[in-house]
Amino acid sequence: MIKAYAAFEAGGELKAYEYDPGPLADHDVEIAVDYCGICHSDLSMLNNEWGITKYPFVPGHEVAGTISALGKHVSKFNIGDRVGLGWHSSYCNDCNTCLEGDHNLCSSAQGTLIGRHGGFADKVRAQATSVVALPEALSSEKAGPLFCGGVTVYNPMVQFDLKPTAKVAVIGIGGLGHMALKFLNAWGCEVTAFTSTEAKRTEALELGAHKTLNSRDSEELTNAANSFDLILSTVNVKLDWASYVQTLKPKGRLHFLGAILEPVEVSVFALMGAQRSISSSPVGSPAVIAQMLEFAARHKIEPEVEVFDMTNVNAAIERLEKGSPRYRVVLKN
Amino acid sequence: MIKAYAAFEAGGELKAYEYDPGPLADHDVEIAVDYCGICHSDLSMLNNEWGITKYPFVPGHEVAGTISALGKHVSKFNIGDRVGLGWHSSYCNDCNTCLEGDHNLCSSAQGTLIGRHGGFADKVRAQATSVVALPEALSSEKAGPLFCGGVTVYNPMVQFDLKPTAKVAVIGIGGLGHMALKFLNAWGCEVTAFTSTEAKRTEALELGAHKTLNSRDSEELTNAANSFDLILSTVNVKLDWASYVQTLKPKGRLHFLGAILEPVEVSVFALMGAQRSISSSPVGSPAVIAQMLEFAARHKIEPEVEVFDMTNVNAAIERLEKGSPRYRVVLKN
Repeated sequence: MIKAYAAFEAGGELKAYEYDPGPLADHDVEIAVDYCGICHSDLSMLNNEWGITKYPFVPGHEVAGTISALGKHVSKFNIGDRVGLGWHSSYCNDCNTCLEGDHNLCSSAQGTLIGRHGGFADKVRAQATSVVALPEALSSEKAGPLFCGGVTVYNPMVQFDLKPTAKVAVIGIGGLGHMALKFLNAWGCEVTAFTSTEAKRTEALELGAHKTLNSRDSEELTNAANSFDLILSTVNVKLDWASYVQTLKPKGRLHFLGAILEPVEVSVFALMGAQRSISSSPVGSPAVIAQMLEFAARHKIEPEVEVFDMTNVNAAIERLEKGSPRYRVVLKN
Repeated sequence: MIKAYAAFEAGGELKAYEYDPGPLADHDVEIAVDYCGICHSDLSMLNNEWGITKYPFVPGHEVAGTISALGKHVSKFNIGDRVGLGWHSSYCNDCNTCLEGDHNLCSSAQGTLIGRHGGFADKVRAQATSVVALPEALSSEKAGPLFCGGVTVYNPMVQFDLKPTAKVAVIGIGGLGHMALKFLNAWGCEVTAFTSTEAKRTEALELGAHKTLNSRDSEELTNAANSFDLILSTVNVKLDWASYVQTLKPKGRLHFLGAILEPVEVSVFALMGAQRSISSSPVGSPAVIAQMLEFAARHKIEPEVEVFDMTNVNAAIERLEKGSPRYRVVLKN
């Protein structure tokens, strides 16, 4: 039996919940959860904002732990290996998208907590392909958030062949955005944080931003016309996107990482004259996760975390939902 | 004196108009106009749809002609060289965008008919940098439309490093779209034309499409989910863009070449799951125009044109405005 914490209705409090996972599938591993981050999408799922949640619902898809059991066809891990697990818990591994290495875009990929139970538990299971080994230099305590929030901001740097000479801005200096500042700084880029408060301004500079721009000051935005090769938006609220598009250089890209429910309205003329793009992407493939972990280990990049005991899971959720954690909340078993 | 045809008010009939161009600037050339294409943007400017037209207004920015005079600092041409001129008649040549070869994105680039007089004339002038030599294999009669419409559809193939293995669809089989079909076919791609009439279907296949899709048949669109690496939209009316986005493969791009005035509404979720992009671009740089001409010459790619005498300019404009020319209208001096 796996001992987990589950919600029994939309927005419900998490309660202790045991379930029988059945026999371990041939290509799966079982991970003893040491730490599990809490991501905004755990809350969206918990509250059934996307209309796909089934209850009882066990959140958790930023797992750092150790391999505790191996399916009979798994050869890439040994018992006791330190590993992590993110948004996806399996891929088809056979479609063109998977064969080209883009497993995170596989239309048959399964979510770690969609139709199955996540990492707010003592154990969690996943297909070995979706599980990635942790480099020695990364602590289990801080590694979890790299597997969802971390790779979400790192992935576009790989996908769009970002050069260290690029000028990049980040919208939203929170759970995702603070990792973006660290990664982009280590990548060699000139990093600008869009902020609206003085406190966040100082923090952004400490986290790796070289500059800040007050996003509520329309004059600052106007003066920043043609400044950025790439803007990573990590917020999940609608902003005045046209103002941000104007701050892109020729060939610049506004890339959405936050799950915004309202459609984005964009003028073709604003894109055309300077050959700009609008795009979005989800998490990253196992290959990109592994590459990110190696890069993070070499550059000593770890998220800033606030750690709660797993038994305190409801307090941890409240901290994320109502507070402003600095910057990622992690549960400890 | 240059003998031209000018409109004297928004939407007005073109009338014979002479003007004194003054001394030839040091970096400019004068071109004796042999042929000049008519582009939809000539009509938009003629009708002051973009609010920037000054009258008297001489349209024409798809010029094929011969060099008739050289500014004193021009060394790249000789008198009598066959050349063409497109949307831009000069660049700053000094900004980073120009220095990186993206002259067409230069914020100081001047339009051939914005604040100056275009190619519906016996002569037209432009900075030598914006003028490109015509390969011997391309006829002057058909070369003009390559300089605006042609490079507009060719440019994204270069900008986005389109591979010959890509599957590409074209929306709008008209002046721009029919050239897109020819270029994409020669590029090695699988080419699909979105059409809504049986007549256009047959023509599209003759022009280079391998397949057609009825864009008014929502079932055909639904069945085409995840089909295309790139969609080039050449129309200037609002369509149901969400339906087209769904036909993009993972990492696919919907690229706008038509000047659509209504904003495009796009759902971030529709882009995110499959890492899709929306973008737009204007014409092409002199280097891309030269490369396109060489490619067109090697593959015997020329637009289909209907030729009118320059003296018949008003009938030619009416043909484009009210008819369905097959596919590009060209004026002959």
